[in-house]
Amino acid sequence: MTICTTAYLNGAFCSAADARISPFDRGFLFAHAAYEVTAVYGGHLVDFGGHVARLDRTLAGIGIPNPLSGDGWGKVHRDLIEYNALSEGLIYLQVTAGSYGLRDFAGPDEFEPTVFLYADEKPLIGAAARDGIKVIFLDDTRWKRRDMKTTQLLSQALAYRTAREAGADTAFMVEDGRVTEAASANAWIVNGEGHLVTRDLSPSILPGITRAGVVDLLEGSGIRLVERAFTPDEAAGAKEVFTTSAGAMIAPVVAIEGKPVGSGKPGPVTRQIQRLYYQSMGADVANVAPWTMG
Amino acid sequence: MTICTTAYLNGAFCSAADARISPFDRGFLFAHAAYEVTAVYGGHLVDFGGHVARLDRTLAGIGIPNPLSGDGWGKVHRDLIEYNALSEGLIYLQVTAGSYGLRDFAGPDEFEPTVFLYADEKPLIGAAARDGIKVIFLDDTRWKRRDMKTTQLLSQALAYRTAREAGADTAFMVEDGRVTEAASANAWIVNGEGHLVTRDLSPSILPGITRAGVVDLLEGSGIRLVERAFTPDEAAGAKEVFTTSAGAMIAPVVAIEGKPVGSGKPGPVTRQIQRLYYQSMGADVANVAPWTMG
Repeated sequence: MTICTTAYLNGAFCSAADARISPFDRGFLFAHAAYEVTAVYGGHLVDFGGHVARLDRTLAGIGIPNPLSGDGWGKVHRDLIEYNALSEGLIYLQVTAGSYGLRDFAGPDEFEPTVFLYADEKPLIGAAARDGIKVIFLDDTRWKRRDMKTTQLLSQALAYRTAREAGADTAFMVEDGRVTEAASANAWIVNGEGHLVTRDLSPSILPGITRAGVVDLLEGSGIRLVERAFTPDEAAGAKEVFTTSAGAMIAPVVAIEGKPVGSGKPGPVTRQIQRLYYQSMGADVANVAPWTMG
Repeated sequence: MTICTTAYLNGAFCSAADARISPFDRGFLFAHAAYEVTAVYGGHLVDFGGHVARLDRTLAGIGIPNPLSGDGWGKVHRDLIEYNALSEGLIYLQVTAGSYGLRDFAGPDEFEPTVFLYADEKPLIGAAARDGIKVIFLDDTRWKRRDMKTTQLLSQALAYRTAREAGADTAFMVEDGRVTEAASANAWIVNGEGHLVTRDLSPSILPGITRAGVVDLLEGSGIRLVERAFTPDEAAGAKEVFTTSAGAMIAPVVAIEGKPVGSGKPGPVTRQIQRLYYQSMGADVANVAPWTMG
């Protein structure tokens, strides 16, 4: 796969293929880094305020000064959209504790963060949103501060690989008999009573920006939301299951551990939430997601 | 701090200051990487076989093919010793799942790992070994597979920073009321009965190569070893406390949470183990560590 997009590295725009960093960067040596992925639709940033606020919280939590203000981040994002003529896709952002001298766990008190962003053009309302995805269950081996969006992502990377080997698309992570979340998305089910259930916020899961957007949209929708942890059995026996993330937005889960969820097709609550979310970002739903129209 | 040492990157030797990698490297994006740190003393690698064997296990555990054989690793290490005229110090080694295309959690099935090594000249039998170090207790927030030596090191990096702010050198990590290990070393105590206690091997801790070396040296020493987890209170009330690691070898702990351990000076068991270990790597103890001679 060729990398053919304009990136931003430490104040300058360059071809992403030419971007280079030092292997002494603390992002490379210690996973001492925060990241965000923001959706772009119709050339506009989706839920951007939420991403900037979460970045600020993560950076504070891992001791990295925020190198740009909120609008500074907005400008770099908008420039990347313009330089890449990006209509639909993602902007990836990573801030690390920088590079200086040889490897040292503590590092200096004062330092210059490394800032890296790039644009990735891809359909956000695509086949996965229409037809659904398959998941498996895996032990959640992640560190304990999952409420911070850091690059300690090895468990998730390995989960995706294990899922692929099992013929699935992603994994639901399980800890102490409860689903925490999907490998890079929040997990939701519609239970027997027709209630929408997603895990309550805590250090055990990422406070998803798309999750928050969906919670907001539920007001007045007639759908009752319950925020609590659920078991793998509840997920496997649910009427509907879906995930939320900036990258895949609302992805129906149609099979768990090789068995169909509900009818084996995306259900009506999932379709309603997709429709509401796509509309909220200005999509012409009748054209780009007619399958949400019921 | 200037980086002035010869490094090895993907088959070539170069100035460490000039080494560059892509920010799309999976080591940078996902902490999808293994590492090792091997001590060099008198120009010779210490416990090298153990490091190569552990690297092989970590790589297998995180799905990265080992790019070099055992002797291939030996050759690169010996070349770095030669090119840097390294007498005493460390060789750092990192192998990542490589770089290709844009960011993708699963990545390709087949890939070329990134290989990075560099040499760091520093005294291994220095002030910390002679005078001891200070530690604090911190919650262990690491991921669950600490038996694999990966670059998911954010908890450890933050622990070192927190320790520094508290006027200490490192931290003992605590989980479920027991010490797991130090931030980048195994933890040992001498209890009231005079027994040496260190935590038994499990996914909760790193199987330290220096730890294994010390266990071997205890045979015939007259010191009784008990491998089990101990509490923070046991550590704080112990007669002696020390850590083992490739970088600091055997480091006496003379204060915990601001209070002296035992007499507040390195104790006789710690000194005996230092002496045995230094001798095993060929050090002229009477000259370089007379304080171990009792």
